[in-house]
Amino acid sequence: MADRPLIDHDYKTPLEYANTPNMDRLAKAGLLGQLDPIAPGVRPGSDVANFALLGYDPAKYYTGRGALEAMGAGFNLSPTDVAFRCNFATVDDDFRVEDRRAGRIRKGTSKLAKAVNEIKIGSVPGIKTSFKATVDHRGVLVLRGEKISRMVSDVDPQEEGLKIGTARALDGSEEAKRAAAVVNEFVKRSHEVLREHPLNKERANDKENVANIILTRGAGTIPNLPSFKSMFDLRAACISGTAMIQGLAAAAGMELIDVKGATGSINTDYEAKAKAVIEGSKDKNFVLVHVKAPDIAGHDGDFKAKVRALEETDTLVGHIMDEVDIGLNYFALTSDHATPVAYGTHTGDPVPVIIGGPDVPASRALKLSEATAARGNLGRIRGLDLMPILTDLLGRSRLYGS
Amino acid sequence: MADRPLIDHDYKTPLEYANTPNMDRLAKAGLLGQLDPIAPGVRPGSDVANFALLGYDPAKYYTGRGALEAMGAGFNLSPTDVAFRCNFATVDDDFRVEDRRAGRIRKGTSKLAKAVNEIKIGSVPGIKTSFKATVDHRGVLVLRGEKISRMVSDVDPQEEGLKIGTARALDGSEEAKRAAAVVNEFVKRSHEVLREHPLNKERANDKENVANIILTRGAGTIPNLPSFKSMFDLRAACISGTAMIQGLAAAAGMELIDVKGATGSINTDYEAKAKAVIEGSKDKNFVLVHVKAPDIAGHDGDFKAKVRALEETDTLVGHIMDEVDIGLNYFALTSDHATPVAYGTHTGDPVPVIIGGPDVPASRALKLSEATAARGNLGRIRGLDLMPILTDLLGRSRLYGS
Repeated sequence: MADRPLIDHDYKTPLEYANTPNMDRLAKAGLLGQLDPIAPGVRPGSDVANFALLGYDPAKYYTGRGALEAMGAGFNLSPTDVAFRCNFATVDDDFRVEDRRAGRIRKGTSKLAKAVNEIKIGSVPGIKTSFKATVDHRGVLVLRGEKISRMVSDVDPQEEGLKIGTARALDGSEEAKRAAAVVNEFVKRSHEVLREHPLNKERANDKENVANIILTRGAGTIPNLPSFKSMFDLRAACISGTAMIQGLAAAAGMELIDVKGATGSINTDYEAKAKAVIEGSKDKNFVLVHVKAPDIAGHDGDFKAKVRALEETDTLVGHIMDEVDIGLNYFALTSDHATPVAYGTHTGDPVPVIIGGPDVPASRALKLSEATAARGNLGRIRGLDLMPILTDLLGRSRLYGS
Repeated sequence: MADRPLIDHDYKTPLEYANTPNMDRLAKAGLLGQLDPIAPGVRPGSDVANFALLGYDPAKYYTGRGALEAMGAGFNLSPTDVAFRCNFATVDDDFRVEDRRAGRIRKGTSKLAKAVNEIKIGSVPGIKTSFKATVDHRGVLVLRGEKISRMVSDVDPQEEGLKIGTARALDGSEEAKRAAAVVNEFVKRSHEVLREHPLNKERANDKENVANIILTRGAGTIPNLPSFKSMFDLRAACISGTAMIQGLAAAAGMELIDVKGATGSINTDYEAKAKAVIEGSKDKNFVLVHVKAPDIAGHDGDFKAKVRALEETDTLVGHIMDEVDIGLNYFALTSDHATPVAYGTHTGDPVPVIIGGPDVPASRALKLSEATAARGNLGRIRGLDLMPILTDLLGRSRLYGS
């Protein structure tokens, strides 16, 4: 949601430009302020930011992103498994990355995954690899076996034109060396298997970039989280099309509500998500709904798409507010980080936060924006503060001291 | 810079009273807020406050002030050296302090220092003392040798009319006891040497307070700081007439730009400092300029002098803004602490902070003041937050998480 004023849009941010009557109403009637996902100026990944927003200190609980993605993709992980985020990509014969997303491949990735899953690892005995294609060009790799660790560097150079990296042991341990050897063998073998795959011959004929390698990054193990129920005394559900969020929610013991059409991409089904929230709120006392679209538009540097995503999010908020009584329920609305369209990446800016509900003072702000949030009645808080504030308003927080 | 409203000045602070068009312009166009150097209500020394502003957590890195002063005074310290801030002072025969600053002595202190450096320590074998006079009545003492520690109490009672203190071992260790014995011997011997010195006979004849003893305080060792470059990826320079700031900057690996006329006192050469900033910004991407004068006026309880120091600082800011393009560069302006003229000492008030530059929202404040800062668009941050915010704006911060 959050952004910076843009010179070629009258110094307005996408949020200031967008028509968001429902979020404006929420901002006006509730607490409005600024939130630093981690701390002022700290540029967070979505994973650590969502840990903090849900009340889990990432400095204490974060164990890499890969396992969250894998859990979100349906892997039933054990604590010793090491998992990686992956991309199908296009490399030349010299392993230089031509396209990190293999032409944003959409079709046939499960067939490619099947071929890749024939790979048997020879360099390290006793370790099995398991790969799953997820949304578009994305996938997840899981290493299963004894004595492997997540302290392994990325193969994905995250920039086109560069050669792929070699997985290295980040802490020099035997466990990390074993995991790195497995990853390097897997990536090399994925190239051998995929470059010969019939689907890629078709793609080449159609002048599409071939998905001829799998690149790994973000090694992780499942975080050992105390349950959301035990921390905040709330029965919680999560609605998200994003694997990492689903994985985090699962690790926190939340129920995952599967919504058809919640794709985690720019064309998600907002209406279906709103219905799921309304339905979920009937037997849960906490429903997390995550909308990825504004972040995607920010990464793509697409001002119009961001405005549209915010306006569509606003209709989602409106639908929920029509059905879930704000005189009886609390609403919190915020971003996990800013992704300004002029930058195309996360920045360390504070993001707006609203808390609406039966027992909060009204900010009387006329519109939700970064600027009104900076002068709001909530002041400036941190991601880790949000759940304690909500739990307190809900009358469910424990007394500290006596 | 920061102060409190004064009843005998229409409830205005020096900053509200002063004519500061350039700082007002910066405040209007940029982020404006409050900054707690350490934490709300904590009354900081200049040393720990500047650690925090430069991104070094004093709880982790601070090892006493003496060594910073000594480095700033040109001593090439080794990690085992223990250094002290010193004053030439006037005591009576009973070691009662008559004047902590020996009539603010200005001339001949290097001659006195030479005499003091003849002292040979007898009580603890293997320890050498080395003394240097710095600005006015100030100086620095360094103990060099084996098995000494900085955990030594002050001899300077910091109040006139009291007897001088005895240096004690603060932690009871052998190393601290050895250092304390050296200090006590040095102070006693300094009195023996100085009371007979011809210069003091002259001063007595001229009815000036004699500089007949050296009082120590603020024992310290050099802090082991990771370089500013390694922490923030910035090539930095420091412009300051204050030994402690120079010592801190040197310990952080900054380049010290020597400015003739930057005295660290009330009559510093603002124009020369501005020129040095403009020059320094050509081959550095971070320039720290420190102005001590408003703090000195605060310590002296001199409202008019503080207003003048702020107005002169404003011309310095204006000169820099004329030459360093705010459309391309970021400016941060703040104080390391408040020194209200009605108190004459540091208080724990939050101080105003401005961050201006190409990509920040405008506060639209009409004037820079403590009051407008309290309602600014940056909210309330801490000293340690400043460098992460700047690094993020400069596009040089690392992503936390993924």
